[in-house]
Amino acid sequence: MSVITISREFGSGGRELGKRLAEKLGCAYYDQEIITEIASRTALSEQYVQQIIEKKPAASYPIHIGRTFHPTTSYHASQSQKIFKEQCQILREMAEKSDCVIVGRCADYILREHDPFRIFVYADMERKIARCRAKGAEDETLTDRQMKQQIQGVDKNRAQYYGFCTGGKWGDRKNYDLCINTTNIEIKTIVQMIAKMFE
Amino acid sequence: MSVITISREFGSGGRELGKRLAEKLGCAYYDQEIITEIASRTALSEQYVQQIIEKKPAASYPIHIGRTFHPTTSYHASQSQKIFKEQCQILREMAEKSDCVIVGRCADYILREHDPFRIFVYADMERKIARCRAKGAEDETLTDRQMKQQIQGVDKNRAQYYGFCTGGKWGDRKNYDLCINTTNIEIKTIVQMIAKMFE
Repeated sequence: MSVITISREFGSGGRELGKRLAEKLGCAYYDQEIITEIASRTALSEQYVQQIIEKKPAASYPIHIGRTFHPTTSYHASQSQKIFKEQCQILREMAEKSDCVIVGRCADYILREHDPFRIFVYADMERKIARCRAKGAEDETLTDRQMKQQIQGVDKNRAQYYGFCTGGKWGDRKNYDLCINTTNIEIKTIVQMIAKMFE
Repeated sequence: MSVITISREFGSGGRELGKRLAEKLGCAYYDQEIITEIASRTALSEQYVQQIIEKKPAASYPIHIGRTFHPTTSYHASQSQKIFKEQCQILREMAEKSDCVIVGRCADYILREHDPFRIFVYADMERKIARCRAKGAEDETLTDRQMKQQIQGVDKNRAQYYGFCTGGKWGDRKNYDLCINTTNIEIKTIVQMIAKMFE
């Protein structure tokens, strides 16, 4: 192996899968580290980078199209592009440094020349809500309906960001080597299964 | 394990995967056997059963809806329903008899009460064409374009049949536990991987 990328629906356990898989394979794991590194290189705050990355970029020409016909007018859009450029650079450095598992960040697309093994993780809404509840945190007081809306909101942003950066459809099976439904399968079992491919 | 169902795009290697997996797990494998058994029980020819099953059933009320508002008018539609009923019965008998791998036949839906492990196999068009060519047979003289049309035609029928019988969307990841892209992964590797889950 060299690079495994994990895209995931919110609450599907994709991050846990990534961490455990990297541990099992004895390789690097990148997730929040990427945001931290972008922030450090761009002198923007982590919070701001996170916000730009998790929201739909402001109306501007899609990043994945090489040339721009319209001059970028908004400050927000130019920040988006600056952050995306750093993101690409950092991901490439990570992929070249060592074997690694990368969660999110359109890494499946950005690192396509490295032939990553591309995983998409998903689950039924009920299971995702249960997983979010089990993690606890500040969402404890939300009703199921509110939590569902939150999950759908995060995934909508992810889909928009992916579409904006890659021109492709987030979650479309064609963009992945393996799509895993974590509704009925334990993450531990999935880790054993995937690790088997890289033995 | 008890039942593994495999749905697959034409030319994606799903049947090979099913056979090898059953061999590896030492369990029964059903595919064409189901058609043979339906033919035998309904006193229809195998060829006729195959034709009914592989084409979109004639305009009639979808089978998955329990009650019929309109009387079934066409002979073809009543044959479709008769065959589907036998198909359900045979699949249930197979699932109850022993552990097995079943390819096609909406088994993922029909056997849902048996909690099957549901796999969907797919690949890029280029890879599917190459796989069809490698298998040879009578299609050797087809151009790539003709072969693509043939592949799309078979899959369109499968999708329609699945929709008609189950009310669900064929190939929609939500209906499966694992979706596997065989474009870049060897079938043998996938067999090793999946078998690991059932050890």
